[in-house]
Amino acid sequence: MSKVSTARGMRDFLPADMRRRQWVIGRVRAVFERYGFEPLQTPALERIETLTGKYGEEGNQLLFRVLKRGEGGARGETDMGLRYDLTVPLARVMATNQQLPTPFRRYQVQPVWRADRPARGRFREFLQCDVDTVGSTSPVADAECLAVVHDALVELGFTGFRIRLNHREILRSMVERMGVPELEGQVLVALDKLDKIGREGVEREFAARGVPAEAAVELWRLLACAPADASSEQGLEVLAAELNDTGQQAVANLRRVLALADQLGVPASHVRFDPTLARGLDYYTGAVFETVVLEPNIGSISGGGRYDDLVGMFSGRPLPAVGVSLGIERILVVMDELGMFPDLGSGVQVMVVALGDDEIPAALAAAAVLRAAGISVQVSPEPMRFKKIMKAAGRMAVPWLVLLGDQERQAGMVALRDMTTREQVVVTSADAAERILEPVV
Amino acid sequence: MSKVSTARGMRDFLPADMRRRQWVIGRVRAVFERYGFEPLQTPALERIETLTGKYGEEGNQLLFRVLKRGEGGARGETDMGLRYDLTVPLARVMATNQQLPTPFRRYQVQPVWRADRPARGRFREFLQCDVDTVGSTSPVADAECLAVVHDALVELGFTGFRIRLNHREILRSMVERMGVPELEGQVLVALDKLDKIGREGVEREFAARGVPAEAAVELWRLLACAPADASSEQGLEVLAAELNDTGQQAVANLRRVLALADQLGVPASHVRFDPTLARGLDYYTGAVFETVVLEPNIGSISGGGRYDDLVGMFSGRPLPAVGVSLGIERILVVMDELGMFPDLGSGVQVMVVALGDDEIPAALAAAAVLRAAGISVQVSPEPMRFKKIMKAAGRMAVPWLVLLGDQERQAGMVALRDMTTREQVVVTSADAAERILEPVV
Repeated sequence: MSKVSTARGMRDFLPADMRRRQWVIGRVRAVFERYGFEPLQTPALERIETLTGKYGEEGNQLLFRVLKRGEGGARGETDMGLRYDLTVPLARVMATNQQLPTPFRRYQVQPVWRADRPARGRFREFLQCDVDTVGSTSPVADAECLAVVHDALVELGFTGFRIRLNHREILRSMVERMGVPELEGQVLVALDKLDKIGREGVEREFAARGVPAEAAVELWRLLACAPADASSEQGLEVLAAELNDTGQQAVANLRRVLALADQLGVPASHVRFDPTLARGLDYYTGAVFETVVLEPNIGSISGGGRYDDLVGMFSGRPLPAVGVSLGIERILVVMDELGMFPDLGSGVQVMVVALGDDEIPAALAAAAVLRAAGISVQVSPEPMRFKKIMKAAGRMAVPWLVLLGDQERQAGMVALRDMTTREQVVVTSADAAERILEPVV
Repeated sequence: MSKVSTARGMRDFLPADMRRRQWVIGRVRAVFERYGFEPLQTPALERIETLTGKYGEEGNQLLFRVLKRGEGGARGETDMGLRYDLTVPLARVMATNQQLPTPFRRYQVQPVWRADRPARGRFREFLQCDVDTVGSTSPVADAECLAVVHDALVELGFTGFRIRLNHREILRSMVERMGVPELEGQVLVALDKLDKIGREGVEREFAARGVPAEAAVELWRLLACAPADASSEQGLEVLAAELNDTGQQAVANLRRVLALADQLGVPASHVRFDPTLARGLDYYTGAVFETVVLEPNIGSISGGGRYDDLVGMFSGRPLPAVGVSLGIERILVVMDELGMFPDLGSGVQVMVVALGDDEIPAALAAAAVLRAAGISVQVSPEPMRFKKIMKAAGRMAVPWLVLLGDQERQAGMVALRDMTTREQVVVTSADAAERILEPVV
């Protein structure tokens, strides 16, 4: 027997994990569908040309490449890779299905794979959960992203969270004002780390990246226009006066997004304009957003934005898009740590056990009656003694037990035991079903 | 722009496909859960040692191998592969999670990958849907497999189907009676093709495989003990007299399985003992079964059996198991061809459209009211004219339309249009929600 284990960075999801995952995914999916987003799935494997060059040098290193079938594979040749995210596959879908009407709104909840070095909390296979509207530049689509995130988090039981909102053209306009338009990328990479390394850390980064000290001074002055204690409206108004035309248009766009999100039921207290939000990915072109949980302070659990140039890359037509990704894996960890899951039990409502071999057929018949009533029933395949039954029922956390002894079988009845009250009654299977389905008063 | 497509043998599932898949999987999952099977998921990638040698020479050829990260990968080295089925992963799970209590009943619905030559209806990524009970030799577990298949097919709307049932030890005993025990594998491979190539075809195969003609004569005589028009009970009884002790024990086992399946509500007309059923995979050790749809005659859509030696292979402990696989992909094709799907619509119940820019905020507010009532709403991100609205609503097949014109906005109302009756009323959003949710009388 060889030593056996999961592959590095891979996880099994046993029933208890699965129930939590199914519960979270089910709730999130319900929100997506309430917003009219439609389900999409793409294959795990894409042509290698579709994937390479889309995620930068580092991303290329992280692609899992699959060996060709047959002799080519023996020579180490590869023509497919595992998807790295759900965005490039979406762009590919838009190109291979040109008949899809736009705006196309899809949600997609599927695993992605990255050949990362596994570490605590970092896996090589993990679930991504994306919602995107393709083919519309309307701020309605941006506002819906904020509303979907808000509703999904509320649905899952989160209360103290905030959606940070910024716009790529506001950032660009600030960098121009700093006098270093050619260093935009360098400025944003450093600014993106503000939360982690603080103002001094950013200044050190600026120095290392050739951003002059006086540019940094100008940046802090601009950011002071929208301090943390100002409302989004105030911050946008004061900052707008400092920006060029494009920057002012971006301010107007964010104002519109905020107003529409408000109509969609997102409380102003849950969204805040934050000019320090840069978001790493350089494909964003408009609004960018990120959701942080404040109490407890556990950082970002969702992010997204408008990216008008990416989805059309394979299609030969412009396909503006805006979308948001829910960090499902992170959300699952956080909800577990905070004890936010309801008691999901084992899913099994009743355990049916025969006390002896002769009662097995009657036990199955009783189980059939309960199942026909829609009840989830697990039958013990072997007869068991009372003590062992109680242990098994406890482990499964089943609320009801149906026991079949010699007397019950001969009488055509079953013993129904309420595991909470320990009350036990002898009834017909049909009556047992009725009692189990009875709403608790 | 490079030519772009899905990788060979891969499929996208667009919203209309997804809704059918979700519908089928949802129904099947509900049946599994009613029987107390619990959800399990395993990673797409397994260590290559876990996978190789488990599927025979041909299976090894069909494994998708993944290149190692970094330099090893550049040299063509591989240490992981994509799962080929859900059974070897189950065996690996039992080994890496020795704490799992048995009997462990799990269902697993996940894609598998095979580096097959793509052909019509044959894909390199497809969904498998397995139910297994691990750690019990009880015929109750075998009977539950038959019942789960029966209930799932009924739930999906199938009526004219039959579960064929046989036992590996009955086959072995027949081969012994044929006087060629050393040729068991050869006999079963040929017999497995009886449906396709007929009696003469099997005899030709026998000749090619060195099975003597008189052995074939004996086989046809034995099979005549259980002719197609006999009941399972009759067939088993007549054949039993011809078999050795092990064969007779197998007959007793099948009788028990049939009796228990009957208690579980599987009508005798839906199960038939069929001594010609061989099932290709040589890991089966006990009962084997296969489900065929008879009207129309479209062949097998489910198969399984008892395999007591496989699941324990990595665990260092015996783990008898019985399970069944539903051919979900085939079922989806068949249900589509037979028009068995109900009208699943687009999932969207209401389309909300503003007639002008000024009505957009009010349209979003109306959408929020409907969504809060649990209704699935798609808002048009841009204002539209009446003709275009009707076209879009028709394409989405939405049953309701909510229109916001200047008058409605000023009155704080919406125009609600029933797309079936073409009736249109001006109401508040709350009233619109109530009308939409009203049960149809």
